[in-house]
Amino acid sequence: MGKKIVILGCLDTKGNEYAFIRDFIKKEGFQTLVVDVGIINPPVFDPDITRYEVAFAVGEDLKKLLDEGSSREKLTSIMAEGAKKILTGLVKKEEVHGIISCGGTQGTTLSTNVMRSLPVGFPKVMVSTIASGNTANFVGLKDIMMLNSVADILGLNRITRKILREAAGAICGMVKIGTETIDSTKQLIAITNVGITTPGAMKAKEILENAGFETVVFHAVGTGGRAMEEFIKEGQIDGVFDLVTIEVMQQLTGGILASDDDRMTVAGKFGIPQVIAPGGIPCTTFSPHESIPPHLKDRKYTRHNPMFTNILNNKDEFISLAKEQAKRVNESKGPIEWFIPMNGFCSNSTIGEPFYDLESNEAYVETLRKYLRKDIPIHIYKLDINNPGFVQPMAERLIKLIKDHKQ
Amino acid sequence: MGKKIVILGCLDTKGNEYAFIRDFIKKEGFQTLVVDVGIINPPVFDPDITRYEVAFAVGEDLKKLLDEGSSREKLTSIMAEGAKKILTGLVKKEEVHGIISCGGTQGTTLSTNVMRSLPVGFPKVMVSTIASGNTANFVGLKDIMMLNSVADILGLNRITRKILREAAGAICGMVKIGTETIDSTKQLIAITNVGITTPGAMKAKEILENAGFETVVFHAVGTGGRAMEEFIKEGQIDGVFDLVTIEVMQQLTGGILASDDDRMTVAGKFGIPQVIAPGGIPCTTFSPHESIPPHLKDRKYTRHNPMFTNILNNKDEFISLAKEQAKRVNESKGPIEWFIPMNGFCSNSTIGEPFYDLESNEAYVETLRKYLRKDIPIHIYKLDINNPGFVQPMAERLIKLIKDHKQ
Repeated sequence: MGKKIVILGCLDTKGNEYAFIRDFIKKEGFQTLVVDVGIINPPVFDPDITRYEVAFAVGEDLKKLLDEGSSREKLTSIMAEGAKKILTGLVKKEEVHGIISCGGTQGTTLSTNVMRSLPVGFPKVMVSTIASGNTANFVGLKDIMMLNSVADILGLNRITRKILREAAGAICGMVKIGTETIDSTKQLIAITNVGITTPGAMKAKEILENAGFETVVFHAVGTGGRAMEEFIKEGQIDGVFDLVTIEVMQQLTGGILASDDDRMTVAGKFGIPQVIAPGGIPCTTFSPHESIPPHLKDRKYTRHNPMFTNILNNKDEFISLAKEQAKRVNESKGPIEWFIPMNGFCSNSTIGEPFYDLESNEAYVETLRKYLRKDIPIHIYKLDINNPGFVQPMAERLIKLIKDHKQ
Repeated sequence: MGKKIVILGCLDTKGNEYAFIRDFIKKEGFQTLVVDVGIINPPVFDPDITRYEVAFAVGEDLKKLLDEGSSREKLTSIMAEGAKKILTGLVKKEEVHGIISCGGTQGTTLSTNVMRSLPVGFPKVMVSTIASGNTANFVGLKDIMMLNSVADILGLNRITRKILREAAGAICGMVKIGTETIDSTKQLIAITNVGITTPGAMKAKEILENAGFETVVFHAVGTGGRAMEEFIKEGQIDGVFDLVTIEVMQQLTGGILASDDDRMTVAGKFGIPQVIAPGGIPCTTFSPHESIPPHLKDRKYTRHNPMFTNILNNKDEFISLAKEQAKRVNESKGPIEWFIPMNGFCSNSTIGEPFYDLESNEAYVETLRKYLRKDIPIHIYKLDINNPGFVQPMAERLIKLIKDHKQ
């Protein structure tokens, strides 16, 4: 039996496109499982799982709902939930090995909603008219491969045929290469990082790996912190090296790397040992440069690259952040220690660099001391965050916390 | 000789990751061409094309530039231009058949810059830490397949191995399936469309295809109009059925479907026949609902789906748009005719629907009459945009314009 690829979509409005994809996948030697979630016209060809079966999976009677004139929004939501129910089951039983879909705004919303319920490592390809734009709500924290359709997906023509063919090839290749069996005997440490703290993060990684741990680095740009916390919730992480807590700062200041309210609370809730530093917090990031709000135009700034500009946060913002961070971690059940690289919280704020601001750094520490739970140690170093002399004791401390915690 | 896949990236900071990708691709039976664009440390392994050769392709001496302490921004730009020069040449000669890269903000900026210079249909896979966010500046108008890396791409661990393996599988599958030879004897008509004009667009498509044309629909959400105009510039389009000019309206009103200043000027510049309608212009789109600016909160609105809300534009905005559109097309060299579906410019603005506003529609037409070049006909129909009775004469007129134009 060959591997089986799920084709998920509206067989009414995009039936011909799905037939085209299906034929390619079959020609490549894979089986297909076509799931229809269309709610407007009859399907162009017979699916393997009908829209009625999809609705029925979550206890709904689609025919009745259609007769009652239910709203498109309601029906779409039922289709998404039904497809999730069916597919998460099939994925668990390893009866399907990849998923592909294509759509405009409605189709992308529905299909990626379903894809986000499937595990990382399960191949997912989404051809979308809105893949060249803000995909955060569609991709979320998952490995959904988004292919910009360039032209609208309405009929087969010389452009859409090229695009759909690429997508079919991609899902076949991903399914063919398969997933590896993970050797998970090592304990896994999550490290948060951004570009301007990379030397420090790399040193920590080296120390932790030499001590026998596996590490995974999360790019603390909003999604990175959230992804890390998803893995913590799944029980995959044994310790957190939270070098870069810039995402909480940018949540307060309105930068594009903003986290949500969960950031810095999840490890604590699950009792995972963590060491924390204020990496990157001098910066609030905007992209492009022109999007800096008028009231912040006078701030000092550094250009990270042509697309990203960092402006310097002020002392009041450092103080607000310390309060907020203290509030978020004070309920933690696991061990926590704080590490402060007083000579610079990122590469552009070390002594002599444009964002160096000792007064703000000191205000941050002072506020932490005031609001942080009294049993949480704060270690101060007269070094910058990328200095091995700072990172090494922080990494070694985490190793100790994990070992003690385990016993 | 097997097909050859380009591996483009910084072999200093991501050398191990690229070696991992390369080994998979080779195991799948493809050749690889590794192009190093790193500028910080020595490459982890020897590339096929060195960073010095990349710089030299655009006449630059990288060693000298590094010795002089040139800025990272300058060096990155040289690397991008050099790689473009080399790769566009190899693609033209069909010596390479796909490209893959991985990176954070810097790497994604550089590699997608190069990928955007390669033609639609040439397989492109970009593993990126910032693929779950605004990708418009990276993907642009091209078919770049973006894979969210979930974790940062800094070292091989149980998460990054899964992701990179998926990406390697995808590029192999895309290259294996190859591109089709396009039968381009038919003339190609571009149609602009959004969800709320789809019945009209589908009818037009049917009429045009029955008349022997091939059609390609562009989703007029900002990128769609721009993509269409790229194809016009490449000489691929023989006529424009510009049903939906919402993008120009949203450029004026600040909606997310905004076009740039070129929209509605390119077909005219190239003398391509066009028929134009005000499809979608009652709406300004925001996503999510909460992002509607305070001064527009009192407007009537309709929710397109959970992620997109349309607010109703007012009469003054209809008037401004008519002036702007007239200005944009008045310089056109090819034939143009305007079609007005007076009973509704989109499905939510027909008689009885929340956005129906005859006064604004009339103001739009009146303003057009005043500012449009006098030889451009304006055809008025007491029908809505999705009515076949409106779309049919518009489509037939375009066919006539193309035929007359050809002679």
